[in-house]
Amino acid sequence: MSKLVECVPNFSEGRDKEIIEKIVDEVRKTEGVKLLDYCSDKDHNRSVVTFIGGPEETKEAAFKLIKKASELIDMSKHSGAHPRMGATDVVPFIPIRDITTEECVQIAKELGKKVGDELNIPVYLYEDAASCPERQNLANVRKGQYEGFFEKIKKPEWKPDFGPSEMNKKSGATVIGARFPLIAYNVNLGTDNIEIANAISRRIRHISGGLRYAKAVGVMLNERNIVQVSINMVNYEKTAVYTIQEMVKMEAKRYGVPVIGAEVIGLVPMKALIDCAEYYLQIENFDIKQVLETNLSE
Amino acid sequence: MSKLVECVPNFSEGRDKEIIEKIVDEVRKTEGVKLLDYCSDKDHNRSVVTFIGGPEETKEAAFKLIKKASELIDMSKHSGAHPRMGATDVVPFIPIRDITTEECVQIAKELGKKVGDELNIPVYLYEDAASCPERQNLANVRKGQYEGFFEKIKKPEWKPDFGPSEMNKKSGATVIGARFPLIAYNVNLGTDNIEIANAISRRIRHISGGLRYAKAVGVMLNERNIVQVSINMVNYEKTAVYTIQEMVKMEAKRYGVPVIGAEVIGLVPMKALIDCAEYYLQIENFDIKQVLETNLSE
Repeated sequence: MSKLVECVPNFSEGRDKEIIEKIVDEVRKTEGVKLLDYCSDKDHNRSVVTFIGGPEETKEAAFKLIKKASELIDMSKHSGAHPRMGATDVVPFIPIRDITTEECVQIAKELGKKVGDELNIPVYLYEDAASCPERQNLANVRKGQYEGFFEKIKKPEWKPDFGPSEMNKKSGATVIGARFPLIAYNVNLGTDNIEIANAISRRIRHISGGLRYAKAVGVMLNERNIVQVSINMVNYEKTAVYTIQEMVKMEAKRYGVPVIGAEVIGLVPMKALIDCAEYYLQIENFDIKQVLETNLSE
Repeated sequence: MSKLVECVPNFSEGRDKEIIEKIVDEVRKTEGVKLLDYCSDKDHNRSVVTFIGGPEETKEAAFKLIKKASELIDMSKHSGAHPRMGATDVVPFIPIRDITTEECVQIAKELGKKVGDELNIPVYLYEDAASCPERQNLANVRKGQYEGFFEKIKKPEWKPDFGPSEMNKKSGATVIGARFPLIAYNVNLGTDNIEIANAISRRIRHISGGLRYAKAVGVMLNERNIVQVSINMVNYEKTAVYTIQEMVKMEAKRYGVPVIGAEVIGLVPMKALIDCAEYYLQIENFDIKQVLETNLSE
């Protein structure tokens, strides 16, 4: 099995199709990476690209994308509803297969240095790559946005991790980092009582005493007339999908409410679901290489 | 996702390493297929090769392997403990991804015709590719073995599906077909009473009234001093792994015996385990393409 990294850069153009395509083309043209998805939002004036590949290839594609965005986007003329601070706003690297978060942190640092040195763009490291706790949270780093950064960057505590210590007027500043894959997972309850979904959410989520790597909120599904516990899992290896599922069931019992279904939104790493099969089937000593498909890639 | 077929040819040489390597090399040399495994048994004087690839490439590699085996193996001089009737004895094609058993039957037929026409070897189709019920079971086709086939082949009901109607003295005859992937799955019980494992096996297996695509037998694990229900699953889509697991649990309850573990032997198709995660997590409307890794192959 070869090492596999996912990269999800966000850049600040969501309206001009020609510019968007030219930027995405940089990923398409890079050998050894595969473009999985990209989507643009006109109100946000922002695009999100998802691609995957080997560590070096993914880093190379990210650099080329950042370079192209710095050529084609002028932040001094940018407006949009979504908070942003740079032409390429944020670039997370995500470990997918046979690679650690630490290795992704290393990729983020190498890319950050190259972007700082060669493109003259200030770079901040965030999440697992952050150089101090204050920089872990993206919202915290981005506070003040492009317009505010001309002042913010001068403060000693906001000196960039790489690149110049003053703003790049055209390209702004870029946030680069590493984080674990997110899983969006919703559990449907056999009731229309939103209070029950909210109460269960409070028991599940980390912030109010629940599981370390879970965020959760109650949601009303009007069309089906049921409620849902909507969960974001930020580390499926440490807080597993089956743990969430069983804990929602356990809490729902208090109200005599059944779990009537669940849904995975978007992509999910294979291992997150295989881990659940292993748990429920009580499989001993399973090796992920026993999954036939894992033997196919070089 | 590209179509993916597995092929597991068995050929009648398990002693001469040089010959074995030359035959396996035919697979290694074929572009678009990947050799997953091969092993030889000296007593059986037989080797089993496992490889995987696109339909055309897999068919091509199988043909080249059969051709090389027909050049290097002389069946008139072959002896070994395992039943056999040809230099290449049996060649199953197995649907792995994005392909039906029917398409694998088609591959088996095309290969059978080519082997018959170009190599002058009588070919029988078996399992899902069989031309009549009597030819579905490999043991039934192979009965009489190489030595007996010089007479058997003359009977109208044993006229080959392809190739000459008389034996190839050097290469014998070859059986080609299509079948679903096998899963070897064992469930461990918290008892040393083999009678309980046998009784549960009888409830599980098709032949004695159980699940259509399950074979099962009780096994004593002397080292651990426990018993096991040892299961062969011949169609995991129609008789699922979770169905087996839950049914073993249900039957074990009668004896107050817990299921204390399970094991998957060898390779398992990803979907067989994802199906279990879907069941236990109660996931609605899951699309296998939501598994991130399925987007990686062209």
